[in-house]
Amino acid sequence: MTFPDGEELATMSRSYRTIQTELRHGVLWATIDNPPINLIDEPFVTDLIALLDETDTDGDVRVVVFRSADADFFLPHVDVQRIAEYTAAAATSGGPDDISLGALYRRLSEARPITIAVVEGRARGAGAEFLHACDMRFASLERAVIGQPEVGLGTFPGAGSVQHLVRLVGRGRAMQVILGAEDLDGREAERIGVVNKTLPDEQLIAYVERLAARIAGFPEAAVRLVKRRINAAGLPPKEDVHVDAGFFQILARDPASTARMGALMERGLQERSRTELELGAAVGEL
Amino acid sequence: MTFPDGEELATMSRSYRTIQTELRHGVLWATIDNPPINLIDEPFVTDLIALLDETDTDGDVRVVVFRSADADFFLPHVDVQRIAEYTAAAATSGGPDDISLGALYRRLSEARPITIAVVEGRARGAGAEFLHACDMRFASLERAVIGQPEVGLGTFPGAGSVQHLVRLVGRGRAMQVILGAEDLDGREAERIGVVNKTLPDEQLIAYVERLAARIAGFPEAAVRLVKRRINAAGLPPKEDVHVDAGFFQILARDPASTARMGALMERGLQERSRTELELGAAVGEL
Amino acid sequence: MTFPDGEELATMSRSYRTIQTELRHGVLWATIDNPPINLIDEPFVTDLIALLDETDTDGDVRVVVFRSADADFFLPHVDVQRIAEYTAAAATSGGPDDISLGALYRRLSEARPITIAVVEGRARGAGAEFLHACDMRFASLERAVIGQPEVGLGTFPGAGSVQHLVRLVGRGRAMQVILGAEDLDGREAERIGVVNKTLPDEQLIAYVERLAARIAGFPEAAVRLVKRRINAAGLPPKEDVHVDAGFFQILARDPASTARMGALMERGLQERSRTELELGAAVGEL
Repeated sequence: MTFPDGEELATMSRSYRTIQTELRHGVLWATIDNPPINLIDEPFVTDLIALLDETDTDGDVRVVVFRSADADFFLPHVDVQRIAEYTAAAATSGGPDDISLGALYRRLSEARPITIAVVEGRARGAGAEFLHACDMRFASLERAVIGQPEVGLGTFPGAGSVQHLVRLVGRGRAMQVILGAEDLDGREAERIGVVNKTLPDEQLIAYVERLAARIAGFPEAAVRLVKRRINAAGLPPKEDVHVDAGFFQILARDPASTARMGALMERGLQERSRTELELGAAVGEL
Repeated sequence: MTFPDGEELATMSRSYRTIQTELRHGVLWATIDNPPINLIDEPFVTDLIALLDETDTDGDVRVVVFRSADADFFLPHVDVQRIAEYTAAAATSGGPDDISLGALYRRLSEARPITIAVVEGRARGAGAEFLHACDMRFASLERAVIGQPEVGLGTFPGAGSVQHLVRLVGRGRAMQVILGAEDLDGREAERIGVVNKTLPDEQLIAYVERLAARIAGFPEAAVRLVKRRINAAGLPPKEDVHVDAGFFQILARDPASTARMGALMERGLQERSRTELELGAAVGEL
Repeated sequence: MTFPDGEELATMSRSYRTIQTELRHGVLWATIDNPPINLIDEPFVTDLIALLDETDTDGDVRVVVFRSADADFFLPHVDVQRIAEYTAAAATSGGPDDISLGALYRRLSEARPITIAVVEGRARGAGAEFLHACDMRFASLERAVIGQPEVGLGTFPGAGSVQHLVRLVGRGRAMQVILGAEDLDGREAERIGVVNKTLPDEQLIAYVERLAARIAGFPEAAVRLVKRRINAAGLPPKEDVHVDAGFFQILARDPASTARMGALMERGLQERSRTELELGAAVGEL
């Protein structure tokens, strides 16, 4: 998505269907607002691609901060009833082999601006994988919940968490986070290194705002080169992105998985229900 | 070791010579019981291979939890007077190049069930390397002691700790743990990431039991695939396993090493002595 | 630099121009003393090479502990007005491709003795990279300050921090430390794993002395082999050292960078000024 010179600022202050944006001093505040509960679905994926298309060509956006308009949910997980649809949307982002949400997240990791996620509600499954794809993550002490429920549903964290968690927290803790499928609170996420830092709500935004402003004010060539070199050392080989994405697609069609998803749907999955709010507990009760 | 269908449950509830086992709801509780102090010797290695042979072919065992019957010792280290014997036993486990304890531990890392170690006493040397080979490790706040005394003895941690510690705790802390040869308590082990978590004795087993039960109840295909992908990203190249094993064999025959081991044997090594209980201190006093 | 047998001890107790040394029981205490503020300049680089030449051939030096004679500064950063000079000096250390401070630091990482840095003042930029190149790092709770101000200056951490930080603290925290360009205190540096441990001043030296004495007393073959194997698993590919060094050279000549350095020089950079003492804050105010 390109647009004539001089229109960038206006473009950036308009909103997408599911993401509200506001550009202030080089920092694009991008608030995910996809009712009812911010599921990762085709409209959100389409908007994320549009946002990346625009920020990759708009030098005025130096930092993107992702927040949520929903007090309970950052990104709860993918829409498990529309996997084919959002995957097809994700496939419109990249090259001929980039046909997965994991490949789109890889593009997010390599985005031109610096990306920061502020975790103020639940980020689970591919929602947690969105966090890891960003350059940095800061969590609310009171409200952050991070988890990988996939294995409890019989599926596979196919959009990056296997790769990111091994590198961030080591083999043993990656095993526990993914195989245990339990929710982490902000304090635990900080302790093991899943997020950069966890702060009380009353300090969180000011902290991120200050950090984002610093980075937005530094010379861009240095910022971009550092990001590229850290990514070169810290991101997994692309082949692993594709392999993991394939395993998710296979297991999501497995009868063991569809049966468990069906059981959870009956208990309120994908609604603002106790099941969705306490998904880590719910997958352990199946 | 294979056995006719239908006999798995009975087989699993029998005990090995040095490991007591009990299967409950898909979780095999395997208690190491090799008096006098749980040295890693030929009988233990033989039993570990038998246990892996059986659990790799027995789908009823979804998780193995390793504990110790000895209040002071989980696995203190190898039997330094029987290196040739336990190494020969280890060589019966794998392929033609897998002729070391390190190669057997690699097989443990790739075992079909999920493996969890509960560190309630001393785990040093190849005993600590056993921990790292498991998928997860949980430590007793009051009683866990983890250490690599090898360098203090003039030998080399050849069964995995070099590789695992660099990946778990980084180059600087790996240098300190191995070159310093000091004992870590549970709190420090948790702080730097050597164990998943450290808990007071009164909470430890309930915590592990709950986690093991969750994993045992999740669809097996998802659990196994996640383990395989985490291992693919988190385990070292096999060649490094063989190189490290070779260096242990070479240094264990070095006069500097045999002299120090001899001096410690005179002070009670391999007995329930102050030397063995406080081995981190003892190697510093040679 | 070679010298006749038997003269090692005498040689080691003499001082270099910018580094005072004292050998005690196999531990060389090397105190950086390069007034006015311990900048990394041609004399210091020349002395560091001489020290490495000598300790690599002197078996009496088992451990080197780097300290600072300046209460405020460990190594503040390179002399930004003499980049060509210290780089030329660094190029005298190694092979035909080793023409950078990063390559010299790589040689430091592979030095024959075990190297320990005691961070009692400011270590920023290439001063922080010196820390990472050492085998271990211990920080003063009251006085340590560690930071990477390069991006704030429009340059690039080209002597190792990109590579070391990704491996020590993970992609997200490496992004924050380098892109945020903020100062870390000792407690934060320990929390995220940038240093091995942070201790109050009244315990710091005794702790390091005890650790160094242990290592110096252990059989040398084991110590050196462990260091080599940890380095093989934990150091980046050499090509990355060269690539990062090249990016520093390129950005250091960029007008955006020279303008910012000029502005900071006017505010007291490279003097014992508020700008230099609070450099993390100062680069955010440009």
